[in-house]
Amino acid sequence: MAAPAALHLWTGWPHVLRAQQFDPAALDRVFREARLAEEIINSGGSNLLKGKIVLTLFYEPSTRTRLSFEFATYHLGGRVLSSEAAREFSSAAKGESIEDTIRVVCRYRPAAIVIRHYEEGAAERAAAVAADPRTGRPIPIFNAGDGPGQHPTQALLDAYTIWRVRGTLEGAAVAVAGDLLNGRTARSLCYLLAKYPGVSFKLIAPRPVQMKDDLLAYLRRHRVPFVQTEDLAAGVRDVDVLYVTRIQKERFENQNMDAYEQIRDAFSVTSDVLALLPQNAIVMHPLPRVEGPHSELPISVDADPRVIIFDQTEAGMYVRMGLLKLTCAVDRTAGRIAR
Amino acid sequence: MAAPAALHLWTGWPHVLRAQQFDPAALDRVFREARLAEEIINSGGSNLLKGKIVLTLFYEPSTRTRLSFEFATYHLGGRVLSSEAAREFSSAAKGESIEDTIRVVCRYRPAAIVIRHYEEGAAERAAAVAADPRTGRPIPIFNAGDGPGQHPTQALLDAYTIWRVRGTLEGAAVAVAGDLLNGRTARSLCYLLAKYPGVSFKLIAPRPVQMKDDLLAYLRRHRVPFVQTEDLAAGVRDVDVLYVTRIQKERFENQNMDAYEQIRDAFSVTSDVLALLPQNAIVMHPLPRVEGPHSELPISVDADPRVIIFDQTEAGMYVRMGLLKLTCAVDRTAGRIAR
Amino acid sequence: MAAPAALHLWTGWPHVLRAQQFDPAALDRVFREARLAEEIINSGGSNLLKGKIVLTLFYEPSTRTRLSFEFATYHLGGRVLSSEAAREFSSAAKGESIEDTIRVVCRYRPAAIVIRHYEEGAAERAAAVAADPRTGRPIPIFNAGDGPGQHPTQALLDAYTIWRVRGTLEGAAVAVAGDLLNGRTARSLCYLLAKYPGVSFKLIAPRPVQMKDDLLAYLRRHRVPFVQTEDLAAGVRDVDVLYVTRIQKERFENQNMDAYEQIRDAFSVTSDVLALLPQNAIVMHPLPRVEGPHSELPISVDADPRVIIFDQTEAGMYVRMGLLKLTCAVDRTAGRIAR
Repeated sequence: MAAPAALHLWTGWPHVLRAQQFDPAALDRVFREARLAEEIINSGGSNLLKGKIVLTLFYEPSTRTRLSFEFATYHLGGRVLSSEAAREFSSAAKGESIEDTIRVVCRYRPAAIVIRHYEEGAAERAAAVAADPRTGRPIPIFNAGDGPGQHPTQALLDAYTIWRVRGTLEGAAVAVAGDLLNGRTARSLCYLLAKYPGVSFKLIAPRPVQMKDDLLAYLRRHRVPFVQTEDLAAGVRDVDVLYVTRIQKERFENQNMDAYEQIRDAFSVTSDVLALLPQNAIVMHPLPRVEGPHSELPISVDADPRVIIFDQTEAGMYVRMGLLKLTCAVDRTAGRIAR
Repeated sequence: MAAPAALHLWTGWPHVLRAQQFDPAALDRVFREARLAEEIINSGGSNLLKGKIVLTLFYEPSTRTRLSFEFATYHLGGRVLSSEAAREFSSAAKGESIEDTIRVVCRYRPAAIVIRHYEEGAAERAAAVAADPRTGRPIPIFNAGDGPGQHPTQALLDAYTIWRVRGTLEGAAVAVAGDLLNGRTARSLCYLLAKYPGVSFKLIAPRPVQMKDDLLAYLRRHRVPFVQTEDLAAGVRDVDVLYVTRIQKERFENQNMDAYEQIRDAFSVTSDVLALLPQNAIVMHPLPRVEGPHSELPISVDADPRVIIFDQTEAGMYVRMGLLKLTCAVDRTAGRIAR
Repeated sequence: MAAPAALHLWTGWPHVLRAQQFDPAALDRVFREARLAEEIINSGGSNLLKGKIVLTLFYEPSTRTRLSFEFATYHLGGRVLSSEAAREFSSAAKGESIEDTIRVVCRYRPAAIVIRHYEEGAAERAAAVAADPRTGRPIPIFNAGDGPGQHPTQALLDAYTIWRVRGTLEGAAVAVAGDLLNGRTARSLCYLLAKYPGVSFKLIAPRPVQMKDDLLAYLRRHRVPFVQTEDLAAGVRDVDVLYVTRIQKERFENQNMDAYEQIRDAFSVTSDVLALLPQNAIVMHPLPRVEGPHSELPISVDADPRVIIFDQTEAGMYVRMGLLKLTCAVDRTAGRIAR
């Protein structure tokens, strides 16, 4: 039902459902708004969302993402209402469909709804029925992760982090390392960046968790150069970006734990590995990271100025501010940004 | 202890504890405020509750009701603090009585407290001790449902929904259908409407879950005409309002499941049933509804303009705005509405 | 790692981690701000924290404490974002350290972070990494209880309650009664008050739960007079303050329940006990109290004007307002209080 909407390119409005909605022109618009958001915060916040209420509806906990959206709203002068336990809507004898829940809360007149759900497609189902009761116009839905599906603002913030440092995404040589089979963020980033000319990838993963064929086929189809390797040290040379993800222990559970431990330690980005990385490169991680002696990105390397994992988190708030401004601060009747 | 307070008619202040507090004069006042609230929202909100803090204290989850009160507060310019897990107050070794909890939170200076509790009478116990520490005046308590007890704002919003469409409650011919034995909302609506001249009821229920004798006796005592039937199709002819409730599977658990399924399907308000309903009638439902092929109100009939179940939800926010304005926006010292 | 910071005396900024940070000069400053906060509320609130966002991060529930901080923030014109379920940050496969969590949320630009954690030392670990990303300056951390460790604002509010009534803490004769072995609040109060000249203690506890030797040694070392007794009636004569705590049933579980019940009833502050207390004394309790016939402070004595347990709760909000104002309302660049 929502499929047609989801296929639409994002033109500033209304819903943010999948990373695929964003082509380079749309991304450029979001990035410029994100940069403005950074200036807004540094100059003390704004009132662009004055009088607007953003509803965060979380069917499963994701405190980091929820707080990022909520701080973004506050820094723009909006207000927030929230449910950390929206699953209650859908549980037990009195359960109701996501559609009915969205129809109900739209009657409360939120300016936007941020939804996190455990089922793939939930955000698109929500978007299909989210409408202002008086005008019939859509109420923007932000997909903050729907189960194994999409988490588009994570993909946007990863891309923005690179853009913020390099000034462009064109020509970026990007290494993604770790569990590329199960990691949603690495896949999404590859899809987004593949749209830019000159981008190339090094896909560094242990054999059991290498990138799926569908993405490799996508890269070949779009003539994006890539290399696959199991050797972290070899993979990080000559790249602009090293995107690290966690080797998930639970993916190895039916196998030899010795094998897991060996692989895990071979994929730890230690100072020895960083010594091979170009001086102007950056190291990213979607967080949370494993900590302790077997971390994929030990805290001992945090002081390296190329490790910008918390700048990356911060960039996420700016991206969400930019998206909220574009979707909620515009007076759609008059077609202009609210004062 | 709180019994005398509960018997008092509602005169605009302070506590909203039971539907029985509201006679037609009080209801008329609430309805007129609810209609004003609708205008307030359509003109961009107000600052009537500026500087006021409404505390929502939920001992069990009811996200829909909580959000309705919280949006109502925000649209009036107030602020909200909330606990979705207030049960923690009363659990475990460190548990305390509802009275002590209310005595504590009143010291934080809320303008009103919305309380949802799993025990009947909890809201009245709260009201008995809710006082401003400085003035000794009551701090308004809103009962947002106390276990098997009352949920007065639900009853008020149901009545307001009818008033909003018909302009009056007098003379309404009302069919209530479904589980009338266990459904709290249908009972409360009958009690409220029975106070108006010319009202009549059709009580449409399967034999195992028919309306209790106490309400039938009440209707007879007040000379309110009513008919009891098991036949949905017969019951919906010539009515102004069809109020649908869910047949609760769990009430049939010790009986034949075949019998349950037969009854459930016989109480589904399909388009065939709606074909028998007068053209100017309305169809209501307290929500949530069961969905799927055996729904008591299938989504396939949502497009029928007589089905106004989401207007009903919306009306709930207006009623709560009206009540909050009457109870919190008045400067009781000066006896006038705050600017 | 955070140990040096924790040893620093509190000079108005930045972190509130342990009661021991507060010497009489610091306490005096906090008390005067708390008294101002009381005036602020009585005159309708302030805008001292306008534009500031306080984040309450609770790894375990403590609704009373959370609401106290949140109301304090609102009454000062600030805004609040909150997680009642921050434990999700640290649980399961994707768990992360408190340090990484704090590094992340500091990027969202909170003015202060109130943290409640189940592990001793968590607040100090948080304080060691809490910094504004742009200026590098600390973001104030408030310890709202870290497991068996500290809960400094509780200790401050207890001391302020006495100061508020007596005008000074000097010369106070203080009886602490109940479980002095396990009760954190009684211990903290003794440590704080022992710094004032002329203070003396009566430590009234059943033999199995008497005050630990470390505190007794501390009192001897600082030449603070104290008496230990098991006799409540004897202990309450000639004191200015009676601080009552709960006899915790769970501490007696491996012993004779008859013994527990006898002790519990012997430590109930009944009207007979209060008849022995001086007329100008005060009775305090950290709450929650046990209720019912075996309460350590039965509700039947609440009407006694010396029982000021809810004033004590209220004082907690004033103390937190004072601390928030001192730590967040100051423009550290210019070195002056924000307008």
